[in-house]
Amino acid sequence: MRYENVKGTRDFNPEEMEKRKYIIDVIRKTFEEFGFVEIDTPCLEKWDVLSKKGAGGEGILEETYKFEDKSKALIGLRYDLTVPLARFVAMNKKLPLPFKRYQIGKVWRYGDISKGRLREFLQADIDIVGADSILADAEVLACASSALKKLKIDFLIRINSRKILNSIMKKAGIKNELVIDALRSIDKLDKISEDEVKKELFSKGFGKEVVEKIFEMIKSKPEELKIDGIEELNKLSDYLKLYGINNFKIDFSLARGLDYYTGPIFEIVSKERIGSIAGGGRYDNLIELFSSEKIPATGISLGIERIFEILKEYPKKKRIFVALSTEDVFEDAIKIVKMLREKFYVDYDLKGRKLSKQMEYADAAGFSIVVIVGKKDLENNEVTVRDMESGNEKKIKIKDLESFLENFKFKEH
Amino acid sequence: MRYENVKGTRDFNPEEMEKRKYIIDVIRKTFEEFGFVEIDTPCLEKWDVLSKKGAGGEGILEETYKFEDKSKALIGLRYDLTVPLARFVAMNKKLPLPFKRYQIGKVWRYGDISKGRLREFLQADIDIVGADSILADAEVLACASSALKKLKIDFLIRINSRKILNSIMKKAGIKNELVIDALRSIDKLDKISEDEVKKELFSKGFGKEVVEKIFEMIKSKPEELKIDGIEELNKLSDYLKLYGINNFKIDFSLARGLDYYTGPIFEIVSKERIGSIAGGGRYDNLIELFSSEKIPATGISLGIERIFEILKEYPKKKRIFVALSTEDVFEDAIKIVKMLREKFYVDYDLKGRKLSKQMEYADAAGFSIVVIVGKKDLENNEVTVRDMESGNEKKIKIKDLESFLENFKFKEH
Repeated sequence: MRYENVKGTRDFNPEEMEKRKYIIDVIRKTFEEFGFVEIDTPCLEKWDVLSKKGAGGEGILEETYKFEDKSKALIGLRYDLTVPLARFVAMNKKLPLPFKRYQIGKVWRYGDISKGRLREFLQADIDIVGADSILADAEVLACASSALKKLKIDFLIRINSRKILNSIMKKAGIKNELVIDALRSIDKLDKISEDEVKKELFSKGFGKEVVEKIFEMIKSKPEELKIDGIEELNKLSDYLKLYGINNFKIDFSLARGLDYYTGPIFEIVSKERIGSIAGGGRYDNLIELFSSEKIPATGISLGIERIFEILKEYPKKKRIFVALSTEDVFEDAIKIVKMLREKFYVDYDLKGRKLSKQMEYADAAGFSIVVIVGKKDLENNEVTVRDMESGNEKKIKIKDLESFLENFKFKEH
Repeated sequence: MRYENVKGTRDFNPEEMEKRKYIIDVIRKTFEEFGFVEIDTPCLEKWDVLSKKGAGGEGILEETYKFEDKSKALIGLRYDLTVPLARFVAMNKKLPLPFKRYQIGKVWRYGDISKGRLREFLQADIDIVGADSILADAEVLACASSALKKLKIDFLIRINSRKILNSIMKKAGIKNELVIDALRSIDKLDKISEDEVKKELFSKGFGKEVVEKIFEMIKSKPEELKIDGIEELNKLSDYLKLYGINNFKIDFSLARGLDYYTGPIFEIVSKERIGSIAGGGRYDNLIELFSSEKIPATGISLGIERIFEILKEYPKKKRIFVALSTEDVFEDAIKIVKMLREKFYVDYDLKGRKLSKQMEYADAAGFSIVVIVGKKDLENNEVTVRDMESGNEKKIKIKDLESFLENFKFKEH
């Protein structure tokens, strides 16, 4: 019998985790620089929270893991971090507003895995709750941009507005209650061709003329389309420029799949690869679904898995291995290990292996430096330090070891 | 309709997350100092992995969340990080051994919530795979101790051995196949009284004489009990002393609930409160269940929720709020915000509120410092810096603002 991961989930090995940790650290630090504070919510949510009408919507619920616990309570694994935030805000009425929160956590969607999409994936979200100004939308985009810049990712921000899309749908003759259904198809323009999206719209019962009219409008240039909602996007553009952000474009074909958006919507795409690395928008009605109060909100979610795929360069940690040339230096070696662990990442032999085996291990396990503890060296209060990359060795007095290692010229990989 | 958390799960607000983040950072850093490297495994595992005979065991499976996905695959939410590690090692045959890995992640157990136990909780695990020496057991205990010391937690390590418990059971006349069942009851000595444990053993069909004999032995002192497995514990004691650890005691009544342990077992208890904050032990047969190879292993799991409850003191982040005295200083304020965000955690008003309202907000949201941007001050290239704790204000040149804030004598809370 072979043991494997649940389909659509994967492990991350130490090298991959170092890269993920770097990404998360940079993102977290940027979120905090922008004044966002962290919350955590459970991975498990009551089904009535996740399935609330007007929250994520039908499309996403079809992909949501759902089960009964032992008490027959209906539970789901969260499909995003936004609906749980809305519940959190409703349950914490005394939060000073605006509440700028970030959350980094896994979400689950039972989606198509044929193109390498994961069913368990990590998201990093920022949201501003309780600010209706478009300045708040600019702020979340500025924060996301700042994080991606620090990660040296080449990206483009696409912006649109649900208000504009609603106006387009109205002009094309689509009834209010069918708008969301049409938008869900348009949202697929990233993944499938225009013809396929049209075909899907036809199959949903939208007429040829209506569909052609929609496409004419969503393909028009911002300055050509005189339509409700456009002022809001112009304001967002102005604020973004004030923040020094110019790599954005207004794109009327951007729809975003979730039901809850009400105003500006945005997506960040990598220039290197197709596919979005972040998405979000304004959702002024979502919190009201869980609370009796109407509280406006906007936010963006960074997809860590995509960033992880794109990122090539990241700083690697330097780790030290303390090797014992013979077993009788064990107690001295332990002392050196204990001392070095106050400043460095240090491992040593736990198996009583020969020195040559220890060196092979240190090489295979990716240590940058080996400190060799030998009987003779100890008599001179010395150890031998080996740079594993160059193979160079040097004898160092034990009292100088710490400062030597601190100043060691590690080669950048 | 009221919205709430799934029973046994909870949210963490920003203040609580700051404390959790501090705990996790200290623990993570210690793990890395001891040469452990991080992996991540999915929260979802195939049921056949979690339920493998000899893994967690029946007791834990009764508490495991289990469901079918859309393809009818049987899936569970992991109940620990050890069984997934065993699967990971089996799937990665080329890992250089010993493999010292750490993992920090949530696990789920549908347990009794009446005493405030959570059903979704965070664990931080270290394990050494591929080292049969008792030195490896000492290493994981030394690492866990080091982390807890840094957190200034007053703790005691209890150690025992499954080998000793097996010998005790044998001496008491319990058949091999019933040993685990008896141990599961003895494991409850922490939570229920001796009499209740005895009652449970009787109800399982163990005779009065047998049970009395067990209790006589597990209550005896280490030096009194001449029994198989004791040499191993003496060795562990010696290694711990070599690491400078003396706050441990051998306790034959320690059992640990999981099936997979084979050698030394350990538990760390807080002196301030009853209940364990960490637990683990050696499991030399677990990996073999998933792999064709026999690979020894040992490890310990720190319970973040318990540490979170115990910890009182932790450093708090200093956050700065930039307030606008009038709306017309907006562009200047944005510039100051952008500059400060390169070094500090900075927020500003997104709602166009009056200065007095901004100050109220900054106070309620817990900012340490407010930088007030005013028209008149700007004419002198100045801003006003207010220490929110003392209420003191000072005018500072904008060019000196960064260094002033860096040197600002923040009072420790």
